[in-house]
Amino acid sequence: MKKIAALVLSCATAVLCMSVAQAEPQFEKAEDAIKYRQSALSLMGAHSGGLAPMMRGRVPFDAEHVKAEVAILKSLAGLPWKGFGEGTQGGNARPAVWEDSAKFEAAATKLQDNVEKFSQAAESGDFERIRAAYADTGASCKACHDSFRQRR
Amino acid sequence: MKKIAALVLSCATAVLCMSVAQAEPQFEKAEDAIKYRQSALSLMGAHSGGLAPMMRGRVPFDAEHVKAEVAILKSLAGLPWKGFGEGTQGGNARPAVWEDSAKFEAAATKLQDNVEKFSQAAESGDFERIRAAYADTGASCKACHDSFRQRR
Repeated sequence: MKKIAALVLSCATAVLCMSVAQAEPQFEKAEDAIKYRQSALSLMGAHSGGLAPMMRGRVPFDAEHVKAEVAILKSLAGLPWKGFGEGTQGGNARPAVWEDSAKFEAAATKLQDNVEKFSQAAESGDFERIRAAYADTGASCKACHDSFRQRR
Repeated sequence: MKKIAALVLSCATAVLCMSVAQAEPQFEKAEDAIKYRQSALSLMGAHSGGLAPMMRGRVPFDAEHVKAEVAILKSLAGLPWKGFGEGTQGGNARPAVWEDSAKFEAAATKLQDNVEKFSQAAESGDFERIRAAYADTGASCKACHDSFRQRR
């Protein structure tokens, strides 16, 4: 009886996982996954780079604008990682992404944690706190690029 | 005195607009804007396409998953349009984007309105309502592609 219950549970879990997996972006070819992750990373770069002049004090601080931009960044920060599945080697990614996947996943988590802190800082409206969180987020981007992106 | 007040107000407005403009993604070259808009549109395609099997009833309906995916779509739906500025002609965009910009802007607004309705439908958890809103959103994508994207 226990065995049957375990089997039912395991089937239910499998169906659930399958349904979630199939509802997410589907990559028929490795190129599709590469295009997806590069698109997400490129938008993240554009939106964080767009904040640079304000973070450097070259344009006046606009708390509402920072909040809106960081909300976009937060929404984007969860995306690229779905595009680094097994068999999607290539693009600008170094083999280390798959060979040292624990380190890569830790780097992805660190970035998302920092974006979450950046989001909280943006909500506070405190410019110095925002600047510090921006710097930490940028450091996460750089650390990941240094280890996992091909040198240009 | 009124003239001075008007001048001060107009300068203040100019500075504000400038600061907002400079905090948004900056496109030094037309290629950067093209890459940006194509990235955003590509992610939108991946996330709406990823929902297709569920919308067609081929995988079990998962209300939470739909909500999460539609939240991503909603966040993305506001982005591509910033990348269609004057002087960024090219990529897969037809000249009509700039020659008939009122129609293009209306199409972009229609899409965003439909994604907003899709988001409300997703919040309701009502599958039939979600399916209808998904179809309307897809129709907006197609209408815009038919008029403004180069034929492949």
